[in-house]
Amino acid sequence: MVSEETTQEKIMQATYRALCSHGYADLSMQKIAEEFDKGKSLLYHHFDDKEDLMISFLDHLVERLEEDMRCLSRDSEDMLDCFLDKGLCIDDSEKWEFRKALFEMRSQAPFNEKFASRFKKIDNSLLEVLEEILEDREVSEPERSAEIVLSIIEGMTSRRIAMQDESDLTGFKNDLKSLISDL
Amino acid sequence: MVSEETTQEKIMQATYRALCSHGYADLSMQKIAEEFDKGKSLLYHHFDDKEDLMISFLDHLVERLEEDMRCLSRDSEDMLDCFLDKGLCIDDSEKWEFRKALFEMRSQAPFNEKFASRFKKIDNSLLEVLEEILEDREVSEPERSAEIVLSIIEGMTSRRIAMQDESDLTGFKNDLKSLISDL
Repeated sequence: MVSEETTQEKIMQATYRALCSHGYADLSMQKIAEEFDKGKSLLYHHFDDKEDLMISFLDHLVERLEEDMRCLSRDSEDMLDCFLDKGLCIDDSEKWEFRKALFEMRSQAPFNEKFASRFKKIDNSLLEVLEEILEDREVSEPERSAEIVLSIIEGMTSRRIAMQDESDLTGFKNDLKSLISDL
Repeated sequence: MVSEETTQEKIMQATYRALCSHGYADLSMQKIAEEFDKGKSLLYHHFDDKEDLMISFLDHLVERLEEDMRCLSRDSEDMLDCFLDKGLCIDDSEKWEFRKALFEMRSQAPFNEKFASRFKKIDNSLLEVLEEILEDREVSEPERSAEIVLSIIEGMTSRRIAMQDESDLTGFKNDLKSLISDL
């Protein structure tokens, strides 16, 4: 059982690295296997094809996200900073590579029910944490405000990715924080 | 010259329809030709391949966008309404189909310099109009606010597309308008 979990975890790490290196459209089971030291046959033992693996990878992302959020500091100022830093890829340029691959996968969600349901889960988890942070900061109508703030983060990073602009978003983060204090 | 322009225009319309019906990844020159009554050979006379055609299509979008914007009413309230309705696909469910295809094309921009430069132009045109609208409404720091409002529109529609949720965004538009009046 333990080794099964470890294998699964290693496959997910290999998938993450392969996505960062090759993006989603160009990704193949072969390329994922190259990042996974136990080889292609063990990969096929666990997953039928790329889509099957990607769905497990998205489930893994949802779990990781929920764990990450549980580990956040309980201080709402720190939580907000951490949330915005992660969302805007601040101090983590490697994150842009992963974000681009995720952006590609998301673009397939309108045509893939299973992808769409995972992106909905991710969205809901993010909204929930954000709502909690905004509530702590006594923002009026935290639910509505969380929709707005999450859209800003999502929209800003998507626009930057589409323009191949990976410049640092710390200035924008500060604008966003001052908007939040006025909400 | 006139007939050349008409052919070009008809190809662009055929491309728009083909994108709405098939999305971007599944699109082929064949599928575009099926929407174009003058057939595939004339299509190949004008464009080498799908990528070549798509780049012209994005240029056409930029031009169309700029024309549309010039035709907007000069009343800033109407302009804002019109901008938000278009941005949030309100009263135009067919628009979602096109938006999904555009969302797919955008996801290729990180790997395609030519796509990225067109998306940058589109983004700049939208920012410019929005800034003008916000200036008219005496919003403080219109440039910074335009970045925020455009990100909200972009983020909200991307999130909805990724979740296969095409429900009407009129309620969200009203929230956004009240946010803008507080900016």
